Amino acid sequence: MDISHIEHLGIAVKSIEEQIPYYEQVLGVKCYNIEEVADQKVKTAFFMVGQTKIELLEPTSEESTIAKFIEKRGEGIHHIAFAVKDVQSAIDEAQAKGVRAIDQAPRKGAEGLMIAFLHPKSTNGVLTELCMKPE
Amino acid sequence: MDISHIEHLGIAVKSIEEQIPYYEQVLGVKCYNIEEVADQKVKTAFFMVGQTKIELLEPTSEESTIAKFIEKRGEGIHHIAFAVKDVQSAIDEAQAKGVRAIDQAPRKGAEGLMIAFLHPKSTNGVLTELCMKPE
Repeated sequence: MDISHIEHLGIAVKSIEEQIPYYEQVLGVKCYNIEEVADQKVKTAFFMVGQTKIELLEPTSEESTIAKFIEKRGEGIHHIAFAVKDVQSAIDEAQAKGVRAIDQAPRKGAEGLMIAFLHPKSTNGVLTELCMKPE
Repeated sequence: MDISHIEHLGIAVKSIEEQIPYYEQVLGVKCYNIEEVADQKVKTAFFMVGQTKIELLEPTSEESTIAKFIEKRGEGIHHIAFAVKDVQSAIDEAQAKGVRAIDQAPRKGAEGLMIAFLHPKSTNGVLTELCMKPE
């Protein structure tokens, strides 16, 4: 699948504003971008830690999957995103190997990335995203 | 706190052996080490993804915190570990800023690292480990 690194870790939070002080003042990592992803009904805040981003995800609607995750499991780590060379071929490869994909084709995510999710039932409970910078 | 990168991600699993094929054959990352950490009552399997390790954690006893995690929440991402320059000073700094630490002093973790955990109630639901290679 040609994974180069962990692109980001998604963390479900009730409020980005309330959590930024923990990341900036305790962990000492700086929030460099806040962005709303209307499609996913979330507001996101980004921090760079080495080559991996931490992405805080705050639901902007009760219909958001992040709102449902928090309701069911509380705040916490929501997904892991791997950087791949080509998302479509990574989806195709995973499906050919029996993994269920939530997205059959790449769609637009935060920070202009093209993304697709694999289904956690196929990835042992770990919600897994594949992503790449568009050419 | 001088975090350089995400050292590893801990993932709670029922069986390392059953999950290695997913990581090696679907994601294409190779297991380079399997190690038992008696102190934590777990068997661990390691995969390198860029500068971050994925650490699968299989409980070796029902008393393991990993066994309890799986019983309560199912398999999935268990904790995030940040590489810091000095674990003791990172614990001290976190506590001075009001964060509760599980470990008051570094202890030995897998792969010879010195580690300490912060309490998830102080880190917004994200079980957080600080670690470093001993000098």
